[in-house]
Amino acid sequence: MVNRSAQDIRCLNRFEVLRRFYAAADARTRQDLAAETGLSFATVANLTAELLDAGVLMEAGRDGSSGGRPRTLLTVNADRGALVGVDVAETSVRTELFDLALRELAVDERPLAPGDVTPDHVTQQIVAGVTAVLASAGLHQDSVLGVGISIPGLVERDRGVSAYSPYWAWRDVPMRDLLLDRIDLPIHLDNPLKASTLAEMWFGAGREADDLVVVTLRSGVGAGFALGGALYRGTTNSAGEWGHTCLVFGGRKCRCGRLGCVEAYVGTPGIAETLRGVAPDDPLLASDGDDSALLAGLAARAANKDGVAIEVIRQTGAYLGAAVGNLVNLFNPEVLVLGDQIADHLGELLLSETRATLADHALAQPLRAVSVRVSPLPHDAVSRGAAAFALEGFLDDRELFGPVSRSRTARTRAKAGAGAGAEE
Amino acid sequence: MVNRSAQDIRCLNRFEVLRRFYAAADARTRQDLAAETGLSFATVANLTAELLDAGVLMEAGRDGSSGGRPRTLLTVNADRGALVGVDVAETSVRTELFDLALRELAVDERPLAPGDVTPDHVTQQIVAGVTAVLASAGLHQDSVLGVGISIPGLVERDRGVSAYSPYWAWRDVPMRDLLLDRIDLPIHLDNPLKASTLAEMWFGAGREADDLVVVTLRSGVGAGFALGGALYRGTTNSAGEWGHTCLVFGGRKCRCGRLGCVEAYVGTPGIAETLRGVAPDDPLLASDGDDSALLAGLAARAANKDGVAIEVIRQTGAYLGAAVGNLVNLFNPEVLVLGDQIADHLGELLLSETRATLADHALAQPLRAVSVRVSPLPHDAVSRGAAAFALEGFLDDRELFGPVSRSRTARTRAKAGAGAGAEE
Repeated sequence: MVNRSAQDIRCLNRFEVLRRFYAAADARTRQDLAAETGLSFATVANLTAELLDAGVLMEAGRDGSSGGRPRTLLTVNADRGALVGVDVAETSVRTELFDLALRELAVDERPLAPGDVTPDHVTQQIVAGVTAVLASAGLHQDSVLGVGISIPGLVERDRGVSAYSPYWAWRDVPMRDLLLDRIDLPIHLDNPLKASTLAEMWFGAGREADDLVVVTLRSGVGAGFALGGALYRGTTNSAGEWGHTCLVFGGRKCRCGRLGCVEAYVGTPGIAETLRGVAPDDPLLASDGDDSALLAGLAARAANKDGVAIEVIRQTGAYLGAAVGNLVNLFNPEVLVLGDQIADHLGELLLSETRATLADHALAQPLRAVSVRVSPLPHDAVSRGAAAFALEGFLDDRELFGPVSRSRTARTRAKAGAGAGAEE
Repeated sequence: MVNRSAQDIRCLNRFEVLRRFYAAADARTRQDLAAETGLSFATVANLTAELLDAGVLMEAGRDGSSGGRPRTLLTVNADRGALVGVDVAETSVRTELFDLALRELAVDERPLAPGDVTPDHVTQQIVAGVTAVLASAGLHQDSVLGVGISIPGLVERDRGVSAYSPYWAWRDVPMRDLLLDRIDLPIHLDNPLKASTLAEMWFGAGREADDLVVVTLRSGVGAGFALGGALYRGTTNSAGEWGHTCLVFGGRKCRCGRLGCVEAYVGTPGIAETLRGVAPDDPLLASDGDDSALLAGLAARAANKDGVAIEVIRQTGAYLGAAVGNLVNLFNPEVLVLGDQIADHLGELLLSETRATLADHALAQPLRAVSVRVSPLPHDAVSRGAAAFALEGFLDDRELFGPVSRSRTARTRAKAGAGAGAEE
C-alpha cells in the first residue's frame, strides 16, 4: 500500500507551513515561508490561500522592512477554534485546552481510582474534563475543532479503538463510539508514544528539526520518529518499540519475557534492578512499584553526592548511552530528545552520563550531526501531543481542505497568481 | 532544513508511478495507476502527461476489457535511453547496462589488482567498463541517461566525492570530476548500502512494498531503509549503521573498536570468530581473510550435515535473529530483505535459523506484519542499485521535468483534463 497520496502531501505541506509560525511566534510573509520551507513561492501561495480560506491564517498588516513594495504579513488566527488534548494515564485523566496558536487556555486533572477502571468510567472522566476546561475558558463546545485522546497500549486509530490496554486488561474497547454518544466533536485516538512524538514535533524541539527521534522513559520505554516533518508509523502503526530491542544479548529478563531488552535496563523497574545490584538493601527498594518515589529519591541523593545513587545513575547512563547510540547510528537524526518521567526526575544528571557513553557508541558522523537534549516541554507532553492529534486531524479535514474541486482549484490558483503578481 | 520540497514530492510521485510499471511488466491505464498508487486520477493524469512528454512512457494501444469505452494503455519506453550502473568493489569493477524498462543489456567485469589502486586507475577501469558495455550493446554514449557509481565508504553525493574509502585509504577523492574529464554524462555517486537499498526498491522486493528494510551482510554489515517509497538517508546521509549498533553490551571487540556491535557477530569475521569458539582448529580458519572460501566451506559442510558448520550457522542465526528483530521492532516494515555475500552463500540455511530466533525477539504485531526473505536479486545488487542512482537522477532532472513553467503547467493540465474528460 502506498502511504503518500496527493492529499497526504498537501496535508504535510500544510503542516510544514504552520510549523514555521509556531517555531517563531511572529507574523511572516509568503516570501519568509518560501525561504524557510524550501517550497516554491507558488506552492506557498497556494497553501496560504487555502489556510486563509479555512480561517487558519489571517492577514496581519504589511511588512515594509525589506525596502521594496510592502508585503502582506500572515499570522495564525488563534481564535479560529480550540483543540483539546486528553492524557488518559494509569492513575489520572489530564485534559488541556489550547487555542489554534497552541497557547494553553485551561487544564483539568482528575484521578482514576486504581482497580475500578471501566471504559464507561474513563469515558465519564473524559467528558467531565472536556466540560471543565471549556467552562474554565468560557468557550462553547462549538468552538472546539477536535479532541485528541492518548490511551496506553495498542490503539487502532482508524477505528478509534483501544485494541489492548495492558494496565486495565481492556481489549477492543470502542472509545470513540463511547465518546461520540456524549460529545459531538471529532475524536482522534492514539497512544502515548505517538502523542509524545507529535508533542515534540508541534510544541517542542521538532518545530525546527526535520528528522527527530523522541525517546520516552518511564516504566516502559519507547522511541517515536518524526521523519521529514511527519510521524513515521510503520506498516501497522507499531514502529518505535525500542524498549524491546535487544541491548544485552542473553541478559536480564524483561517483563515482556524476552532477554536483554533496553527496557529491562533503562525503564524504572530496570533502574530498580540496577540499584539492587549496587546496594541490595537500599531503603529506596522498599518503595516497591512507586516509580516516582524511586526516581525522586535517586535524584535527591545524587544531588547530595550519595555514592550509591551516583553509581546507579552512572550505570543507567551507560546502558542508555549505548541504546540511544543505536538510534543515532540507525536514524542519523538532527535532534534526539529524552522525555517523560525518568527524564523529568533525573534530567541533566542522567543526560551527562548518557552523553559520555553515547560518544563511545555512536559513529563520528551521525554523532556530530545530532543534538541530544532533555525535552523542553513542560510535564504535559502527552496531553499536548493528544491536542496535536486533533490539530493534525483538523488540518487533514477533507471537507474543509479538499479534495480540491475544479472550481475551487481555479479560485485558489487565481488568488495565488494575483498574490504572486502583486508581490513578486 | 526541510527535506520535502514541492519538486521532491513531484519526483517521488514520478517514482511511484514508474514502480507500478516495473512491478508488473505490463501496459496499464491511468485508471490502473490511480488504483494502484492511491493517487487521485487528476494527479496520475498530470504525472503521466509529464512522463509522456519526456518520452519515459509511451502509448501502447487501447484496453477495451473493462466493457466501457476503451482506455489508453501506457508502457515504459524502453528505448528512451540507457542506464549504467558501476559497482567499484575492493577487488573488481563491475559495469552493467540497462534499458529504461530495467532490462539488462550488457555486463562487464574487470579485476582491480590489490594494493595498487589509485583514483586514476579506478577512473580508467570505469571508463573502460562503460565503453565495453556500450560497444557490446551497440549503443552510442548519447543514448545513456546517466551513470551511477557505487564506491565503498563515506560518500558526499552532492559533490560526487569519495570522502573516505577505508580499503584504499582514499580521502576526498573527487571521483565525479575525474570521470567528467573522460565521460560527458551525468555521474551519480553513492555507497554500496544505498545502492543495495535502491536495487531492492527498483528491481526487487521493494517494487511492491512501501516500507522496506534491506540488510546487507558481508565483511561489514548495514541496513538500508526505503520508507514510503523513497530512500531514507538521515540528516547527513549516514543513516543505516546497523552494523555498529550494540547487540551484546560489553561483548566482542568490533574492528571499529567498539564492544558488542552487530557486525562483530554477523559479519564474516564475526562468523569466523564464532567458528573459532566452536572448533578452534577448524581447517576453514586457515582461509584467513578469504571470506568467500569461509562462507562457501560452511555452506557445503552444513549441506553435508557437518555438526560444526551447523552449529556455527545456528549461533550466527541466533545473533542475526535478535539483530533483525531490533529492526522489525523499530521500523515495523512490510518487507525485510537479507542480501549480499553472506546471504548469497548461506541463504535459506541461515534464514531458517534467523526466522526461528526472530520469533523470540520481535513483538507479535510487527512480526505478523513483516515478510523476511533472502534478496530475490541476482548477485549484482550493487551494480543494479548504482543504475538506480542514474534512474533517480534522470527522474529528478529539473530541466526535463520542471520546475514547471506557467505555460507548461497549463499545457500539461489541459492534456490531463482532456484525458480525464474522454476517459472518466
